[in-house]
Amino acid sequence: MPRFALRIEYHGAPFVGWQRQAGQASVQGTIEAALARIAPEGPLVQGAGRTDAGVHATGQVAHVDLGRAWDPFRLCEAVNAHLRPLPVSVTACAPVPDDWHARFTAVERRYLYRVISRRAPLVHDAGLAWQVRRKLDADVMRAAAGPLIGHHDFTTFRSAQCQATSPHRTLDEVRIETRGVPGGVAIDLHLRARSFLHNQVRSIVGTLEQAGGGAWQPDEVARALAAADRTRCGPVAPPQGLYLTGVGYPDDPFGSGA
Amino acid sequence: MPRFALRIEYHGAPFVGWQRQAGQASVQGTIEAALARIAPEGPLVQGAGRTDAGVHATGQVAHVDLGRAWDPFRLCEAVNAHLRPLPVSVTACAPVPDDWHARFTAVERRYLYRVISRRAPLVHDAGLAWQVRRKLDADVMRAAAGPLIGHHDFTTFRSAQCQATSPHRTLDEVRIETRGVPGGVAIDLHLRARSFLHNQVRSIVGTLEQAGGGAWQPDEVARALAAADRTRCGPVAPPQGLYLTGVGYPDDPFGSGA
Repeated sequence: MPRFALRIEYHGAPFVGWQRQAGQASVQGTIEAALARIAPEGPLVQGAGRTDAGVHATGQVAHVDLGRAWDPFRLCEAVNAHLRPLPVSVTACAPVPDDWHARFTAVERRYLYRVISRRAPLVHDAGLAWQVRRKLDADVMRAAAGPLIGHHDFTTFRSAQCQATSPHRTLDEVRIETRGVPGGVAIDLHLRARSFLHNQVRSIVGTLEQAGGGAWQPDEVARALAAADRTRCGPVAPPQGLYLTGVGYPDDPFGSGA
Repeated sequence: MPRFALRIEYHGAPFVGWQRQAGQASVQGTIEAALARIAPEGPLVQGAGRTDAGVHATGQVAHVDLGRAWDPFRLCEAVNAHLRPLPVSVTACAPVPDDWHARFTAVERRYLYRVISRRAPLVHDAGLAWQVRRKLDADVMRAAAGPLIGHHDFTTFRSAQCQATSPHRTLDEVRIETRGVPGGVAIDLHLRARSFLHNQVRSIVGTLEQAGGGAWQPDEVARALAAADRTRCGPVAPPQGLYLTGVGYPDDPFGSGA
């Protein structure tokens, strides 16, 4: 059966998360329902990462086995036609080898967390970023994030429900960009790693926000990491600021184009 | 009576436009209703530009006369509290002289028009950009826009309902920026002028899209301008891509800060 990789964008708000759950609207279940309209065998979809309820994606990747060969362009168009009007969109399809696996072949995950620091309520970014009403010092956040880069025991920054066998992960990058917005500042945090623990990005961002807002001394973040103690984590940042922006593979199935 | 300038952000979708209309939800009427909750005299609001139904703003400016002096920070907070949960937000307030007028003191208007060229339906940008399903050549759009810069008779590019006494305007800038998005390209068109005619930006963008998509030869845009004939305009671009991003004054009432 021909296997296809799909690159998927979704708004997290209407879904209980990526993963299929009986009787609830999940992104995975929504895509499987759309695929069932064009592939009567009812194919199952396997995603690269299980995003939580309310979390967005612009670059989730999944694979699916279909009963026949499809032209990738026509497959995209057909799936999108059946996803309407839900806020889920397939932005690329590509044939992949039978042993290619969206989750297990992946070598990198990239996330963006969008914070907007301002007093006035968000308008166009409502539901698309975390609004923080206090001022944040991005330089302090960058300094506080430095010690998190590299290979560490991230027990402090993972959910108590995390099912990974090891709390050790290698965080390759935390890049923090700022730009002015009317009445405040937008702070984009770009995180990159081979894989992340459950709630790791939101735990890190919520803790860095404490440092940026002056509630924590910057070096308290490094001490919290070293403690390997979940109770030392700051408040977990809310889901609507988080985007799974990309998944890396040894060979990009979607090529270099759009 | 102390006069205040307000900088205002809004989502265009729920409104019939900026201008107050009996029995309909306008941005102006919405702000006046919020102000009436804190200023029992029921102050009237005068905006710098009358945006159409569905058009967004991140930098609309208006002025209002209030019965007493207000601390600008407290005025912002109070108005925003009464605007909730509508998608209208006051991002700055500043005291201005009695003869300062949001519309007549203005010397520049800045607009952004957001086009996204891709096949897959928009997700996070739904309602916040114009989706064009064909490919657009931004270099062709830049070349076609060149002859529009400067002082011209813009009869071709103004609504038949435009009430301005003269069709002449000076277009100071059309800057076109592109960036990749999953499955396509985002094209931001930044337009700047002392003032614009009714529907001028959307008429220009809709015409440039024809050139970028290959339906028009690039030099047809210059010929359409020279004809000074409304029937030579391309299709008017839809409202959801348009943002009033800023209004310029000889002295910025909001200062250089956020």
